[in-house]
Amino acid sequence: MRVYLAGPEVFLPDAREVLDRKIALTREAGLEPLAPGDLDEGPEGESRHEKGLRISRKNEALMHAADAIIANLTPFRGVGADPGTVYELGYMCGREKLAYGYTNVASNHFERLVNYYDGQMMQDEDGSLRGDDGLAVEHFDMADNLMLPGGIIARGGKLIACDVDPEALYSDLTAFADCLALLAARR
Amino acid sequence: MRVYLAGPEVFLPDAREVLDRKIALTREAGLEPLAPGDLDEGPEGESRHEKGLRISRKNEALMHAADAIIANLTPFRGVGADPGTVYELGYMCGREKLAYGYTNVASNHFERLVNYYDGQMMQDEDGSLRGDDGLAVEHFDMADNLMLPGGIIARGGKLIACDVDPEALYSDLTAFADCLALLAARR
Repeated sequence: MRVYLAGPEVFLPDAREVLDRKIALTREAGLEPLAPGDLDEGPEGESRHEKGLRISRKNEALMHAADAIIANLTPFRGVGADPGTVYELGYMCGREKLAYGYTNVASNHFERLVNYYDGQMMQDEDGSLRGDDGLAVEHFDMADNLMLPGGIIARGGKLIACDVDPEALYSDLTAFADCLALLAARR
Repeated sequence: MRVYLAGPEVFLPDAREVLDRKIALTREAGLEPLAPGDLDEGPEGESRHEKGLRISRKNEALMHAADAIIANLTPFRGVGADPGTVYELGYMCGREKLAYGYTNVASNHFERLVNYYDGQMMQDEDGSLRGDDGLAVEHFDMADNLMLPGGIIARGGKLIACDVDPEALYSDLTAFADCLALLAARR
Protein backbone atom coordinates (compact mmCIF):
# COMPACT_ATOMS: atom_id res chain seq x y z
CA MET A 1 0.00 0.00 0.00
CA ARG A 2 1.46 3.35 -1.11
CA VAL A 3 0.94 6.24 1.30
CA TYR A 4 1.25 9.92 0.41
CA LEU A 5 2.86 11.78 3.32
CA ALA A 6 1.31 15.26 3.44
CA GLY A 7 2.23 17.99 5.88
CA PRO A 8 3.84 21.36 6.52
CA GLU A 9 7.12 19.79 7.64
CA VAL A 10 8.35 20.61 4.12
CA PHE A 11 8.67 24.21 5.41
CA LEU A 12 10.98 23.30 8.34
CA PRO A 13 14.71 24.11 8.33
CA ASP A 14 15.33 20.36 8.83
CA ALA A 15 12.63 19.26 6.36
CA ARG A 16 14.80 16.59 4.76
CA GLU A 17 15.59 14.98 8.11
CA VAL A 18 11.93 14.95 9.24
CA LEU A 19 10.76 13.59 5.88
CA ASP A 20 13.41 10.88 6.03
CA ARG A 21 12.17 9.84 9.49
CA LYS A 22 8.59 9.69 8.16
CA ILE A 23 9.78 7.62 5.19
CA ALA A 24 11.66 5.20 7.47
CA LEU A 25 8.68 4.80 9.85
CA THR A 26 6.37 4.16 6.88
CA ARG A 27 8.64 1.39 5.59
CA GLU A 28 8.92 -0.09 9.10
CA ALA A 29 5.10 -0.31 9.14
CA GLY A 30 5.25 -2.36 5.93
CA LEU A 31 3.90 0.48 3.77
CA GLU A 32 5.43 2.29 0.80
CA PRO A 33 6.04 6.02 1.34
CA LEU A 34 5.41 8.66 -1.32
CA ALA A 35 6.67 11.99 -0.03
CA PRO A 36 7.20 15.41 -1.56
CA GLY A 37 10.97 15.62 -1.63
CA ASP A 38 13.85 17.25 -3.35
CA LEU A 39 12.95 19.05 -6.53
CA ASP A 40 14.81 18.55 -9.80
CA GLU A 41 16.56 21.52 -11.35
CA GLY A 42 14.03 23.50 -13.39
CA PRO A 43 14.45 24.67 -16.98
CA GLU A 44 16.58 27.77 -17.51
CA GLY A 45 14.66 31.01 -17.09
CA GLU A 46 11.84 29.30 -15.17
CA SER A 47 9.78 31.93 -13.32
CA ARG A 48 8.74 31.60 -9.67
CA HIS A 49 5.19 30.97 -10.83
CA GLU A 50 6.24 28.23 -13.25
CA LYS A 51 8.30 26.58 -10.51
CA GLY A 52 5.27 26.61 -8.21
CA LEU A 53 3.16 24.95 -10.90
CA ARG A 54 5.89 22.33 -11.43
CA ILE A 55 5.86 21.44 -7.71
CA SER A 56 2.07 21.22 -7.78
CA ARG A 57 2.14 18.86 -10.78
CA LYS A 58 4.76 16.69 -9.09
CA ASN A 59 2.73 16.42 -5.88
CA GLU A 60 -0.48 15.63 -7.78
CA ALA A 61 1.35 12.90 -9.71
CA LEU A 62 2.54 11.39 -6.42
CA MET A 63 -1.04 11.43 -5.11
CA HIS A 64 -2.25 9.70 -8.28
CA ALA A 65 0.19 6.89 -7.50
CA ALA A 66 -0.89 6.62 -3.84
CA ASP A 67 -3.54 4.40 -2.24
CA ALA A 68 -3.80 6.44 0.95
CA ILE A 69 -2.86 9.74 2.57
CA ILE A 70 -1.69 10.60 6.06
CA ALA A 71 -2.09 14.36 6.53
CA ASN A 72 -0.31 16.38 9.21
CA LEU A 73 -3.10 18.80 10.16
CA THR A 74 -1.24 20.53 13.01
CA PRO A 75 -2.31 24.22 13.05
CA PHE A 76 0.04 26.21 10.86
CA ARG A 77 0.44 30.01 10.97
CA GLY A 78 -2.96 30.47 12.54
CA VAL A 79 -6.12 28.71 13.69
CA GLY A 80 -6.08 25.75 11.34
CA ALA A 81 -4.11 23.34 9.19
CA ASP A 82 -1.69 24.20 6.36
CA PRO A 83 -3.80 24.94 3.23
CA GLY A 84 -1.48 22.92 0.98
CA THR A 85 -2.01 19.86 3.17
CA VAL A 86 -5.77 20.52 3.35
CA TYR A 87 -5.93 20.69 -0.47
CA GLU A 88 -4.12 17.35 -0.65
CA LEU A 89 -6.44 15.75 1.92
CA GLY A 90 -9.45 16.92 -0.10
CA TYR A 91 -7.80 15.71 -3.30
CA MET A 92 -7.30 12.19 -1.97
CA CYS A 93 -10.78 12.04 -0.40
CA GLY A 94 -12.23 13.19 -3.74
CA ARG A 95 -10.46 10.22 -5.33
CA GLU A 96 -11.96 7.93 -2.65
CA LYS A 97 -8.56 6.89 -1.31
CA LEU A 98 -7.97 5.94 2.33
CA ALA A 99 -7.39 9.01 4.49
CA TYR A 100 -5.89 9.46 7.95
CA GLY A 101 -4.81 12.62 9.69
CA TYR A 102 -3.12 13.81 12.83
CA THR A 103 -2.53 17.04 14.66
CA ASN A 104 0.06 17.74 17.34
CA VAL A 105 -2.31 20.22 19.03
CA ALA A 106 -5.01 18.58 21.15
CA SER A 107 -7.31 21.61 21.56
CA ASN A 108 -10.26 21.47 19.20
CA HIS A 109 -11.24 23.98 16.51
CA PHE A 110 -13.78 25.73 18.76
CA GLU A 111 -11.28 26.18 21.59
CA ARG A 112 -8.74 27.67 19.19
CA LEU A 113 -11.39 30.01 17.74
CA VAL A 114 -12.29 31.26 21.24
CA ASN A 115 -8.59 31.94 21.70
CA TYR A 116 -8.35 33.62 18.27
CA TYR A 117 -11.16 36.00 19.29
CA ASP A 118 -9.69 36.50 22.80
CA GLY A 119 -13.06 35.32 24.07
CA GLN A 120 -14.75 38.40 22.49
CA MET A 121 -17.80 36.74 20.97
CA MET A 122 -21.48 37.59 20.59
CA GLN A 123 -24.45 35.28 20.87
CA ASP A 124 -27.06 34.99 18.09
CA GLU A 125 -30.77 34.71 18.86
CA ASP A 126 -30.48 30.94 18.44
CA GLY A 127 -27.62 30.77 20.93
CA SER A 128 -24.85 30.25 18.38
CA LEU A 129 -21.68 32.31 18.70
CA ARG A 130 -20.05 34.89 16.43
CA GLY A 131 -16.65 36.54 16.64
CA ASP A 132 -16.36 40.31 16.92
CA ASP A 133 -15.92 40.29 13.12
CA GLY A 134 -19.42 38.79 12.73
CA LEU A 135 -18.18 35.40 11.54
CA ALA A 136 -19.87 32.30 12.95
CA VAL A 137 -17.78 30.37 15.47
CA GLU A 138 -18.20 26.70 14.57
CA HIS A 139 -18.62 24.30 17.46
CA PHE A 140 -18.68 20.71 16.29
CA ASP A 141 -16.18 19.10 18.70
CA MET A 142 -13.80 18.61 15.82
CA ALA A 143 -10.08 19.21 15.32
CA ASP A 144 -10.57 21.63 12.39
CA ASN A 145 -13.21 22.78 9.91
CA LEU A 146 -15.81 20.00 9.73
CA MET A 147 -14.98 19.09 6.12
CA LEU A 148 -11.54 17.76 7.19
CA PRO A 149 -12.52 15.22 9.86
CA GLY A 150 -15.75 14.62 7.91
CA GLY A 151 -13.83 13.53 4.82
CA ILE A 152 -11.46 11.33 6.81
CA ILE A 153 -14.22 9.63 8.79
CA ALA A 154 -16.40 9.08 5.70
CA ARG A 155 -13.55 6.95 4.28
CA GLY A 156 -13.19 4.90 7.45
CA GLY A 157 -10.12 6.80 8.59
CA LYS A 158 -9.29 8.57 11.82
CA LEU A 159 -7.95 11.99 12.83
CA ILE A 160 -5.67 11.63 15.85
CA ALA A 161 -5.06 14.68 18.06
CA CYS A 162 -2.47 14.91 20.81
CA ASP A 163 -0.20 17.49 22.44
CA VAL A 164 3.57 17.36 22.01
CA ASP A 165 6.63 19.28 23.10
CA PRO A 166 6.11 22.70 21.45
CA GLU A 167 9.70 22.53 20.19
CA ALA A 168 8.68 19.51 18.11
CA LEU A 169 5.29 20.85 16.98
CA TYR A 170 5.72 19.80 13.34
CA SER A 171 8.38 17.13 13.78
CA ASP A 172 6.99 14.90 16.56
CA LEU A 173 5.88 11.72 14.81
CA THR A 174 4.04 9.90 17.63
CA ALA A 175 0.57 10.50 16.17
CA PHE A 176 1.91 9.92 12.65
CA ALA A 177 3.12 6.49 13.76
CA ASP A 178 -0.33 5.80 15.25
CA CYS A 179 -1.87 6.59 11.85
CA LEU A 180 0.61 4.26 10.16
CA ALA A 181 -0.38 1.42 12.52
CA LEU A 182 -4.09 1.95 11.80
CA LEU A 183 -3.44 2.06 8.07
CA ALA A 184 -1.19 -1.02 8.10
CA ALA A 185 -3.97 -2.94 9.88
CA ARG A 186 -6.29 -2.26 6.92
CA ARG A 187 -4.13 -3.95 4.29
CA MET B 1 -23.44 22.61 -16.14
CA ARG B 2 -23.80 22.28 -12.35
CA VAL B 3 -21.48 24.46 -10.29
CA TYR B 4 -20.65 23.92 -6.61
CA LEU B 5 -20.39 27.31 -4.88
CA ALA B 6 -17.72 27.01 -2.19
CA GLY B 7 -16.69 29.75 0.20
CA PRO B 8 -16.60 31.10 3.73
CA GLU B 9 -19.67 33.29 3.16
CA VAL B 10 -21.58 30.54 4.98
CA PHE B 11 -20.08 32.03 8.17
CA LEU B 12 -21.46 35.55 7.55
CA PRO B 13 -24.39 36.96 9.55
CA ASP B 14 -26.18 37.49 6.20
CA ALA B 15 -25.05 34.14 4.75
CA ARG B 16 -28.47 33.34 3.27
CA GLU B 17 -28.64 36.68 1.43
CA VAL B 18 -25.12 36.35 -0.01
CA LEU B 19 -25.71 32.74 -1.05
CA ASP B 20 -28.99 33.73 -2.70
CA ARG B 21 -27.16 36.42 -4.71
CA LYS B 22 -24.56 33.85 -5.79
CA ILE B 23 -27.33 31.44 -6.79
CA ALA B 24 -29.12 34.13 -8.81
CA LEU B 25 -25.91 35.20 -10.61
CA THR B 26 -25.12 31.57 -11.43
CA ARG B 27 -28.55 31.07 -12.99
CA GLU B 28 -28.20 34.35 -14.91
CA ALA B 29 -24.96 32.95 -16.38
CA GLY B 30 -26.91 29.94 -17.65
CA LEU B 31 -25.39 27.57 -15.08
CA GLU B 32 -27.01 25.46 -12.35
CA PRO B 33 -25.95 26.40 -8.80
CA LEU B 34 -25.30 23.81 -6.08
CA ALA B 35 -24.72 25.64 -2.81
CA PRO B 36 -24.39 24.60 0.81
CA GLY B 37 -27.61 25.92 2.25
CA ASP B 38 -30.07 25.50 5.04
CA LEU B 39 -29.66 22.31 7.01
CA ASP B 40 -32.55 19.96 7.76
CA GLU B 41 -33.47 19.34 11.38
CA GLY B 42 -31.22 16.59 12.73
CA PRO B 43 -32.31 13.47 14.62
CA GLU B 44 -33.18 13.94 18.30
CA GLY B 45 -30.15 13.79 20.57
CA GLU B 46 -27.73 14.43 17.70
CA SER B 47 -24.35 15.49 19.10
CA ARG B 48 -22.38 18.48 17.79
CA HIS B 49 -19.91 16.04 16.26
CA GLU B 50 -22.65 14.05 14.51
CA LYS B 51 -24.15 17.28 13.17
CA GLY B 52 -20.76 18.29 11.77
CA LEU B 53 -20.43 14.93 10.02
CA ARG B 54 -23.94 15.31 8.59
CA ILE B 55 -23.03 18.72 7.07
CA SER B 56 -19.84 17.21 5.63
CA ARG B 57 -21.78 14.32 4.03
CA LYS B 58 -24.31 16.77 2.57
CA ASN B 59 -21.59 18.98 1.06
CA GLU B 60 -19.73 15.98 -0.38
CA ALA B 61 -22.98 14.74 -1.96
CA LEU B 62 -23.48 18.17 -3.56
CA MET B 63 -19.93 18.03 -4.94
CA HIS B 64 -20.57 14.56 -6.37
CA ALA B 65 -23.48 16.06 -8.30
CA ALA B 66 -21.44 19.02 -9.59
CA ASP B 67 -19.45 19.41 -12.81
CA ALA B 68 -17.40 22.37 -11.60
CA ILE B 69 -16.46 24.38 -8.53
CA ILE B 70 -15.99 28.10 -7.98
CA ALA B 71 -14.08 28.56 -4.72
CA ASN B 72 -13.98 31.82 -2.76
CA LEU B 73 -10.34 31.76 -1.60
CA THR B 74 -10.35 35.18 0.09
CA PRO B 75 -8.04 35.00 3.15
CA PHE B 76 -10.06 33.95 6.18
CA ARG B 77 -8.94 34.39 9.81
CA GLY B 78 -5.30 34.60 8.81
CA VAL B 79 -2.85 34.38 5.95
CA GLY B 80 -4.76 32.07 3.64
CA ALA B 81 -8.08 30.72 2.46
CA ASP B 82 -10.79 29.04 4.56
CA PRO B 83 -9.73 25.39 5.11
CA GLY B 84 -13.25 24.08 4.43
CA THR B 85 -13.20 25.75 1.02
CA VAL B 86 -9.65 24.55 0.35
CA TYR B 87 -10.70 20.97 1.15
CA GLU B 88 -13.57 21.31 -1.31
CA LEU B 89 -11.31 22.74 -4.02
CA GLY B 90 -8.94 19.80 -3.57
CA TYR B 91 -11.87 17.39 -3.55
CA MET B 92 -13.19 18.63 -6.89
CA CYS B 93 -9.71 18.78 -8.47
CA GLY B 94 -9.13 15.21 -7.27
CA ARG B 95 -12.31 14.26 -9.14
CA GLU B 96 -10.96 16.06 -12.25
CA LYS B 97 -13.86 18.51 -12.35
CA LEU B 98 -13.51 22.07 -13.70
CA ALA B 99 -12.17 24.43 -11.05
CA TYR B 100 -12.15 28.22 -10.77
CA GLY B 101 -11.33 30.38 -7.80
CA TYR B 102 -11.32 33.99 -6.71
CA THR B 103 -10.01 36.07 -3.86
CA ASN B 104 -11.10 39.55 -2.85
CA VAL B 105 -7.56 40.34 -1.64
CA ALA B 106 -5.13 41.22 -4.44
CA SER B 107 -1.88 40.89 -2.46
CA ASN B 108 -0.14 37.59 -3.15
CA HIS B 109 0.76 34.85 -0.66
CA PHE B 110 4.35 36.06 -0.29
CA GLU B 111 3.30 39.65 0.45
CA ARG B 112 0.85 38.44 3.10
CA LEU B 113 3.55 36.23 4.66
CA VAL B 114 5.95 39.18 4.88
CA ASN B 115 3.15 41.04 6.64
CA TYR B 116 2.44 38.03 8.91
CA TYR B 117 6.09 38.04 10.02
CA ASP B 118 6.17 41.86 10.31
CA GLY B 119 9.07 41.71 7.89
CA GLN B 120 11.16 39.78 10.45
CA MET B 121 12.69 37.15 8.21
CA MET B 122 16.07 35.44 7.86
CA GLN B 123 17.87 34.46 4.68
CA ASP B 124 19.11 30.91 4.05
CA GLU B 125 22.47 30.22 2.45
CA ASP B 126 20.70 29.76 -0.88
CA GLY B 127 18.96 33.14 -0.55
CA SER B 128 15.52 31.77 0.33
CA LEU B 129 13.63 33.36 3.22
CA ARG B 130 12.44 32.00 6.57
CA GLY B 131 10.16 33.55 9.16
CA ASP B 132 11.43 34.11 12.71
CA ASP B 133 9.79 30.74 13.53
CA GLY B 134 12.13 29.03 11.06
CA LEU B 135 9.39 28.21 8.55
CA ALA B 136 10.15 28.72 4.86
CA VAL B 137 8.46 31.74 3.31
CA GLU B 138 7.15 30.58 -0.07
CA HIS B 139 7.58 32.97 -2.96
CA PHE B 140 5.90 31.70 -6.11
CA ASP B 141 3.93 34.79 -7.22
CA MET B 142 0.73 32.98 -6.34
CA ALA B 143 -2.43 33.96 -4.47
CA ASP B 144 -2.07 31.18 -1.86
CA ASN B 145 -0.17 27.94 -1.21
CA LEU B 146 0.97 26.66 -4.61
CA MET B 147 -1.29 23.60 -4.52
CA LEU B 148 -4.40 25.80 -4.82
CA PRO B 149 -3.62 27.79 -7.98
CA GLY B 150 -1.69 24.74 -9.25
CA GLY B 151 -4.80 22.56 -9.05
CA ILE B 152 -7.01 25.17 -10.67
CA ILE B 153 -4.60 25.90 -13.52
CA ALA B 154 -3.93 22.19 -14.17
CA ARG B 155 -7.67 21.85 -14.94
CA GLY B 156 -7.71 24.80 -17.31
CA GLY B 157 -9.29 27.10 -14.73
CA LYS B 158 -8.26 30.48 -13.42
CA LEU B 159 -7.81 32.09 -10.01
CA ILE B 160 -8.92 35.74 -10.12
CA ALA B 161 -7.59 38.15 -7.49
CA CYS B 162 -8.83 41.68 -6.93
CA ASP B 163 -9.30 44.16 -4.10
CA VAL B 164 -12.75 45.17 -2.88
CA ASP B 165 -14.32 47.42 -0.29
CA PRO B 166 -13.13 45.86 3.02
CA GLU B 167 -16.72 46.03 4.28
CA ALA B 168 -17.67 43.57 1.52
CA LEU B 169 -14.60 41.33 1.84
CA TYR B 170 -16.57 38.08 1.67
CA SER B 171 -19.73 39.33 -0.01
CA ASP B 172 -18.44 41.29 -3.04
CA LEU B 173 -19.25 39.09 -6.04
CA THR B 174 -17.40 40.92 -8.83
CA ALA B 175 -14.65 38.31 -9.17
CA PHE B 176 -17.19 35.52 -8.61
CA ALA B 177 -19.17 36.84 -11.60
CA ASP B 178 -15.94 36.90 -13.66
CA CYS B 179 -15.43 33.20 -12.81
CA LEU B 180 -19.02 32.45 -13.85
CA ALA B 181 -18.45 34.12 -17.22
CA LEU B 182 -15.26 32.09 -17.84
CA LEU B 183 -17.01 28.88 -16.84
CA ALA B 184 -20.10 29.60 -18.95
CA ALA B 185 -17.83 30.12 -21.97
CA ARG B 186 -16.54 26.54 -21.57
CA ARG B 187 -19.89 24.81 -21.91
